[in-house]
Amino acid sequence: MASAIIAGAGASTGAAVARMCAARGLAVHGARRRPPPQQSGDTFTVSAVDFRDEESVEAFVARVEESSGPVALGVHNIGANVQFSVADTTPQVFRKTWELAALSSLHFARALGARMASRGEGTLIFTGATASLRGAASFSAFAAAMHAKRALAQSLARELGPQGVHVAHVVIDGPVDTPFVRQLLGEEKYGLLKQRGGLLEPDAIAEHYWALHQQPKSAWSFESDLRPYAERW
Amino acid sequence: MASAIIAGAGASTGAAVARMCAARGLAVHGARRRPPPQQSGDTFTVSAVDFRDEESVEAFVARVEESSGPVALGVHNIGANVQFSVADTTPQVFRKTWELAALSSLHFARALGARMASRGEGTLIFTGATASLRGAASFSAFAAAMHAKRALAQSLARELGPQGVHVAHVVIDGPVDTPFVRQLLGEEKYGLLKQRGGLLEPDAIAEHYWALHQQPKSAWSFESDLRPYAERW
Amino acid sequence: MASAIIAGAGASTGAAVARMCAARGLAVHGARRRPPPQQSGDTFTVSAVDFRDEESVEAFVARVEESSGPVALGVHNIGANVQFSVADTTPQVFRKTWELAALSSLHFARALGARMASRGEGTLIFTGATASLRGAASFSAFAAAMHAKRALAQSLARELGPQGVHVAHVVIDGPVDTPFVRQLLGEEKYGLLKQRGGLLEPDAIAEHYWALHQQPKSAWSFESDLRPYAERW
Amino acid sequence: MASAIIAGAGASTGAAVARMCAARGLAVHGARRRPPPQQSGDTFTVSAVDFRDEESVEAFVARVEESSGPVALGVHNIGANVQFSVADTTPQVFRKTWELAALSSLHFARALGARMASRGEGTLIFTGATASLRGAASFSAFAAAMHAKRALAQSLARELGPQGVHVAHVVIDGPVDTPFVRQLLGEEKYGLLKQRGGLLEPDAIAEHYWALHQQPKSAWSFESDLRPYAERW
Repeated sequence: MASAIIAGAGASTGAAVARMCAARGLAVHGARRRPPPQQSGDTFTVSAVDFRDEESVEAFVARVEESSGPVALGVHNIGANVQFSVADTTPQVFRKTWELAALSSLHFARALGARMASRGEGTLIFTGATASLRGAASFSAFAAAMHAKRALAQSLARELGPQGVHVAHVVIDGPVDTPFVRQLLGEEKYGLLKQRGGLLEPDAIAEHYWALHQQPKSAWSFESDLRPYAERW
Repeated sequence: MASAIIAGAGASTGAAVARMCAARGLAVHGARRRPPPQQSGDTFTVSAVDFRDEESVEAFVARVEESSGPVALGVHNIGANVQFSVADTTPQVFRKTWELAALSSLHFARALGARMASRGEGTLIFTGATASLRGAASFSAFAAAMHAKRALAQSLARELGPQGVHVAHVVIDGPVDTPFVRQLLGEEKYGLLKQRGGLLEPDAIAEHYWALHQQPKSAWSFESDLRPYAERW
Repeated sequence: MASAIIAGAGASTGAAVARMCAARGLAVHGARRRPPPQQSGDTFTVSAVDFRDEESVEAFVARVEESSGPVALGVHNIGANVQFSVADTTPQVFRKTWELAALSSLHFARALGARMASRGEGTLIFTGATASLRGAASFSAFAAAMHAKRALAQSLARELGPQGVHVAHVVIDGPVDTPFVRQLLGEEKYGLLKQRGGLLEPDAIAEHYWALHQQPKSAWSFESDLRPYAERW
Repeated sequence: MASAIIAGAGASTGAAVARMCAARGLAVHGARRRPPPQQSGDTFTVSAVDFRDEESVEAFVARVEESSGPVALGVHNIGANVQFSVADTTPQVFRKTWELAALSSLHFARALGARMASRGEGTLIFTGATASLRGAASFSAFAAAMHAKRALAQSLARELGPQGVHVAHVVIDGPVDTPFVRQLLGEEKYGLLKQRGGLLEPDAIAEHYWALHQQPKSAWSFESDLRPYAERW
């Protein structure tokens, strides 16, 4: 028996990845700060875990492995998209954004990396964004946090690759089709964007993650980008 | 019925991609400058086509589509790895390397891109290398040609994506397990490198290409890297 | 009268930049956590300021401007090079490294950026490193912090450029000739490295910073790299 | 006595660099395919040299060194901005663009690099563009050529740096204030762009090139970008 952990198992990408992993036979354990009530028919569980707290992460991972066997796939899907100019970015916001995206990645990497390295196998996937690659006006806090996350993932890949652990970073370069984005855009804009192919489907992202997990160790991807076909870039 | 074209269907990556496409049901047409004699049991054909000559490329593509139906997947796998300092790089070498890797890519892109765009579907994959991303001592001709190839692929992706054609560039970051590399290294070094996981397997590369071809249009990768797990980078 | 602030006015780069600015007529105020005793002949002052504390930074900048006039040039030269594998990187180390390099940059950017923007002029230079551009084994904490710093600088440049403030990021790509590096390497290795041209001279870095500060606003550099001529890269 | 060679000594950047070098005491020899008639008061000469022809380049450089002493600074300022979709980019256009920007750079690098390396000093600066860093719709030919130029420059820098020759690549990221751009935009748009600070001044670019040439060998820049302060990026 093998398991999967999805940190940031929210309503869209995280949930889609979780469903996919469950459908492929893994015992899937999602985690988020405030999980919704479990529903009958759910193919995976979601626990309340704050990945900013190392002890909680370590305890969660230990619990999962005890109950469901070694974690074969871990996905870190926690971001924290905020938009403020530098002048309006308080140290509190800057810090919280970094804790959510980057510090939580360290906790995730330490708890899962060591276990996977000792077994000589496993996959760790980090979800990135356009802001992982470049800063932009009003994106300093988010870009700084996502750059840090990417640097951590890249360092980790170089350390764990030779030990048999596959570390990957995926740059999601466009808006994902989620209830949150729909509400943000309003029905009209959302409809237009969806119609002209400007949204990433969570299930399509999940397929990509699964394909990364299936890569044989002689040809691993560290970084790949994903965008909807009609995205201007 | 649908077909695939593999430009640069050599002994390793190209042949592996060709076999994979054939196994998945595509009518596969390889091309190389000097194809080996066809053998019984071959699941794909290899034609003599010099991709540096636009008319030959156009005629080849037309012939393939006439005989085997629309090309669903085109792979450009022609490189030209040479190693000379700039001082020893003659304009002839510089030009030939560019013609093999970059000009041939233009011919490939024009012949297949227009057809795919008119049908609103298809996948074009360009094989890159470490030298696609940075120059290095003794790599000026190869890096210049591979940089040009990548720039073309990136421009093409932005033009054809909204028309429904998926363009991808794959950075092969390490030595591939081929007879050529084996001979180059000698048996001892080759054996050691293979044993410690330092070689990319052609079949693993082919799997990745197929996964790219299968991506739904709401989440396309333009660029991804591939390296063996034990590669230092 | 105009002034300059050097955050991280240590023994090498920071001090060299401070001397250079003083020699060109600016009233130079250095800052570091534990400044050495002032000496007769010093052409600039060094105050005890912990840039991880926003209020201290704001107070320091206010004091400088009150005593010495508007800050024309601010240099953020605080890094925190630590080397641990991810497995050995405690959250404490990860956080402290980020606070020293990235959070301090936010405080610096907010205190100086707003003042400069209101005057429509000024230069802010951030010192980066090789680790600003890519992660590496044993460099996760440092790379994560320096990536975050670079993302902040890039976002800031895009926000403040149109307001007349020049933001630059300099990637120092090699070892600087400092007492710290000398001690780290030992006399023999240090001597060899110095002899074969493998060390960056602090005064040469300072010259580059000054040249950036002198750039007319019609042609500003955001990013430039610096390395010793004999560095392999 | 020392000299400078400016390949692509056109009406704007090239001429500004030439004037600057002459004012600083170098004997300046410009080159372009069709030079304008020499005028009284000119501080530099412009010869008719087609840098796509290696023999002409070698002869030109030999002539300059014979008449005016060793070339201390060489600037390659030849680009070839064309805009076509890939579908409309003929192999002829693709090739000519590459010959103008990339092949000419090889000739320039070979003729000057060997001479400078033998003397253990000298500076070679290559002018790049936004398209040197990424492809874009309608920019395949230009981006491919400029990517190739950059890869050559980067390889050259790694080869010649340890021999005492400084190789630099400057990314001009915005429109330069030239008669050509003025005519292209029309008076109204040109006026607005100029007024809001959206144009690079040739003299400011020249200052940057001179600063690069003055860098001491312990701290050389390979790559730097330049853009007008009001440019959105």
